[in-house]
Amino acid sequence: MSLVLDTAAQDLLFREARTANAFSDEPVTEAQMQAIYDLVKFGPTAFNSTPLRVTLVRSPEARERLVQHLAEGNRAKTLAAPLVAVLSADNEFHEELPQLLPHFPQAKDLFFAERPAREQSSLVNAALQAAYFIVGIRAAGLAAGPMTGADFAGIQKEFLDDDHTPIMVVNIGKPAENAWFDRSPRLAFEDVVTTV
Amino acid sequence: MSLVLDTAAQDLLFREARTANAFSDEPVTEAQMQAIYDLVKFGPTAFNSTPLRVTLVRSPEARERLVQHLAEGNRAKTLAAPLVAVLSADNEFHEELPQLLPHFPQAKDLFFAERPAREQSSLVNAALQAAYFIVGIRAAGLAAGPMTGADFAGIQKEFLDDDHTPIMVVNIGKPAENAWFDRSPRLAFEDVVTTV
Repeated sequence: MSLVLDTAAQDLLFREARTANAFSDEPVTEAQMQAIYDLVKFGPTAFNSTPLRVTLVRSPEARERLVQHLAEGNRAKTLAAPLVAVLSADNEFHEELPQLLPHFPQAKDLFFAERPAREQSSLVNAALQAAYFIVGIRAAGLAAGPMTGADFAGIQKEFLDDDHTPIMVVNIGKPAENAWFDRSPRLAFEDVVTTV
Repeated sequence: MSLVLDTAAQDLLFREARTANAFSDEPVTEAQMQAIYDLVKFGPTAFNSTPLRVTLVRSPEARERLVQHLAEGNRAKTLAAPLVAVLSADNEFHEELPQLLPHFPQAKDLFFAERPAREQSSLVNAALQAAYFIVGIRAAGLAAGPMTGADFAGIQKEFLDDDHTPIMVVNIGKPAENAWFDRSPRLAFEDVVTTV
């Protein structure tokens, strides 16, 4: 085997992990979310910019408001999920850069003075962090149900502001029985990787 | 502890893992890259679209061509790294969708008939997969050195085509002594997560 990570961890995070479409009733606690964050916050981003922001939709009232902006096929499972997170990219992340990148505080003005540059960077880096977050949910023994079938402009208006662009909604919980479809195929190494 | 993943794995993937700026001479083998891919290919993407493509820059001639498009501070370490990967987003990923999403082949025409929709989706989902790839490099006991300080238009012209948008360059190898800066700060849970 060419991997150092033990097989149980490989299975937990990737091989056996699946996108869940149904969850048990077991709550997802604040302590679990804190532990997930305290693990995945170390995932690398450009300039250590860490632009991901997370809105946990816990109250039934907020959950009702959220699902109105989801594709119809995503509504019932999102209403029933123990916890739902709206992941967004902070387009004003550069305000935190002097704190986050103390050895290179000039980065804020050198690279991110203009909003379009910030939006591009925050989108890509928040997406990286969304992936770390999904891995972290699995590291907590939970299943993630990431969804992009949503009216993100509506979600932004409902829960966020002009500086935060939602990129994903994630259901979180212990999977129910029959929580997933059959595993879909993956591309072969040769179809994805070329060498020059 | 609220996490199920064992502490050694947490450390390997996140807590002790760092962005390396210098590497040992030990080669990174094709078998290692295959094992990394065969693990992280299971990471979730929208519609199982898996738009990430990887160009491994192995030959000295290709490496020289690559570093000309990198920010000056990234050149020497990239020339010296055991292996370098250019990660790109395939904007024509929809051609593979009928194969990748056999239970919903209509997705190709329903959602991705137009190039701008494909470009947005491939960027975000390739970024998710770039994060899984970084986690996979660490799972192989290697260090990743992801970089976005580059002329991506130049890299695209040099190594790719109009359908593939480069999003990141990643140095890969065993870290050398003193391979990294001090750990930069991270935002507190309370600064990132809100509950509604």
